[in-house]
Amino acid sequence: MQSSSQIGTEQILLTRGVPAVEALPNKLISECIQAVLEGPDGRMVLQYGHNGGYLPLRRLVADQYSVSPDQVIVGNGSLHLQDLLSALTIKQGDVVFVEQPSYDRAIKTFRRRGARVIGIPLEQDGVNIEALEKAIARQAPAFMYVIPDFQNPAGVTTSAEKRRALVDLAQRYGFWLVEDVPYRTLRYFGESAPLLRELNSERVITVSSYSKLISPALRVGYLIGPLDLVKKLTRLAEDTILSPVLPTEAVVVEFHKRGYFASNLESLKQLYAPRLQAIVVALKKYLPDVPFAEPEGGFFVSIYLPEKTDSTNLLARAQEVGLALTNGRDFFADTLDGGEDERGERFVRLPFCALTPAQIEEGVRRLATLL
Amino acid sequence: MQSSSQIGTEQILLTRGVPAVEALPNKLISECIQAVLEGPDGRMVLQYGHNGGYLPLRRLVADQYSVSPDQVIVGNGSLHLQDLLSALTIKQGDVVFVEQPSYDRAIKTFRRRGARVIGIPLEQDGVNIEALEKAIARQAPAFMYVIPDFQNPAGVTTSAEKRRALVDLAQRYGFWLVEDVPYRTLRYFGESAPLLRELNSERVITVSSYSKLISPALRVGYLIGPLDLVKKLTRLAEDTILSPVLPTEAVVVEFHKRGYFASNLESLKQLYAPRLQAIVVALKKYLPDVPFAEPEGGFFVSIYLPEKTDSTNLLARAQEVGLALTNGRDFFADTLDGGEDERGERFVRLPFCALTPAQIEEGVRRLATLL
Repeated sequence: MQSSSQIGTEQILLTRGVPAVEALPNKLISECIQAVLEGPDGRMVLQYGHNGGYLPLRRLVADQYSVSPDQVIVGNGSLHLQDLLSALTIKQGDVVFVEQPSYDRAIKTFRRRGARVIGIPLEQDGVNIEALEKAIARQAPAFMYVIPDFQNPAGVTTSAEKRRALVDLAQRYGFWLVEDVPYRTLRYFGESAPLLRELNSERVITVSSYSKLISPALRVGYLIGPLDLVKKLTRLAEDTILSPVLPTEAVVVEFHKRGYFASNLESLKQLYAPRLQAIVVALKKYLPDVPFAEPEGGFFVSIYLPEKTDSTNLLARAQEVGLALTNGRDFFADTLDGGEDERGERFVRLPFCALTPAQIEEGVRRLATLL
Repeated sequence: MQSSSQIGTEQILLTRGVPAVEALPNKLISECIQAVLEGPDGRMVLQYGHNGGYLPLRRLVADQYSVSPDQVIVGNGSLHLQDLLSALTIKQGDVVFVEQPSYDRAIKTFRRRGARVIGIPLEQDGVNIEALEKAIARQAPAFMYVIPDFQNPAGVTTSAEKRRALVDLAQRYGFWLVEDVPYRTLRYFGESAPLLRELNSERVITVSSYSKLISPALRVGYLIGPLDLVKKLTRLAEDTILSPVLPTEAVVVEFHKRGYFASNLESLKQLYAPRLQAIVVALKKYLPDVPFAEPEGGFFVSIYLPEKTDSTNLLARAQEVGLALTNGRDFFADTLDGGEDERGERFVRLPFCALTPAQIEEGVRRLATLL
């Protein structure tokens, strides 16, 4: 293990939520792709395919979620599917709700497709339901985008109670809940709350991906929704990207068939759990007065720097002490009144999976020097 | 070889321009991906990447076209890049010109991104330049989309003279020429005319892909353009699909490194050239009075059924004699006056690469019975 002194001068990246490079299963993927290309489907997966995606993968996902394969569309990562979904569902003058803070690229995507994106304050157990009701009273959204498990960027998991409140509101006011669950399976301890889909399948669209569970570069994500919506998305996908990347989709199926998915998931948990522990310990040690939601899985912990902290040039000052941070403001959508949420200036996302425990401790130590 | 009698009852597909399934190089691709995943870049190509695409591939393309790698963006097939290009360049009220007929999905993409798409009549040596000038006089387009070599769907190759006329007009009236050249390398005999880019690199955006040259399911296409445009496209790509599919892009590089690209191209030509010959012979035999452009490469020949032909229910009538055709109308954009081009009803695209010479002869024989 590296000691703090060994990493004393190296830059520590607390920027993007990427898997640890040592966790990427090259050899297993190589075996799988070889089996696929030299197997009976070998030529089929090199030809043009249908835009719902590789049928065996749609079946696999359908089985996992107890839906029909016709309710599943596989795309080039889940952001791709969120973009297509936005193109279909966002009309002129629409609003979209997100948790505040939320995934920066999702906010950008919804905006680029024409929505005003409103952030509903996120607490340690999910969004503030009263604030959500107030926002709905003003204008019900085309959809609300939530990451109920180990949220990006906050690390928060929505409680079972708030999940029920969310689906009740979606049902009552007739809007879609888009639940994005790429981290859900990466639970290092504790018990999962039900998927929103399990509470109400009519009003919930579920998206997820294999980026964090196998490899991001395979670009395999999926969306589960009602038949007619999936049919429309499939047509739009065909018009934009013409054909799925069948070889990488077939790899995911082969990865499951050979039992690699389960063993790889176990390795990921064993690698990441001590890293989560390390960041929790480091935060308590170096920033004892700063509260934070302690996650039980996923990639992220987050904090708000104390109000008295000078957040001017935070990124540049972090850079000076050898720390790369992401701009906290990017995770914040508009407030209900259309203004900027000032808390973005003090928000710091801390992705811990791609750093060793020693790097994590050193990173948090450096962060504390900025206060 | 199959005789006509053996294929007497089977349906003959003259629908999509897909590679022959027997031409898909599974084993070679399998070798390449294995080398990539188990080589020094193995983990890197499974991690998130930058949205210009896999740098060694951008370098390879840049070398081929004598441009800087910063002028190359690799995307998920060339239609994907055309969609992003449309999102960036088409503004409210813009027109886009295409050859009439043109690639159906490109027409759809430009329309969906808000353009009025106007078809400039395509003759046997490229578009009618006078008609183009007349259209420009009315409104210069955001861009004009052309497939100068072995055009989809017509099979026409634009002459050197008309290529010069195109770039002169683009320069004079300040619009982009988007040249799509996926078939260019599949020349079975004769000599190539210069790329539009070779005549004028300032006003030309070149797009192409490996779908017809290695495998469609790899979904690797590229776009070459001016630095600032490529930079903007790269940013938009990052916002929509987040990361390239690095493993398939790395396969393309490895395929070249090992010399497979050249040998595979040679095999494709040897497989496809007799098929082109077969369709030319069959058309002259069964439809002696129907003129058509004889291509020297590519995937397509096309004809207009004689004006006296009853084109009502053409597809259904073809189906009855065991022939699957694509709707000719889909390849036609608006006329300059905003109307529908009636020639679409009589237009038939004949993709010949995925059929054996015997199937081709039988297909054309059946087609002739519809007249």
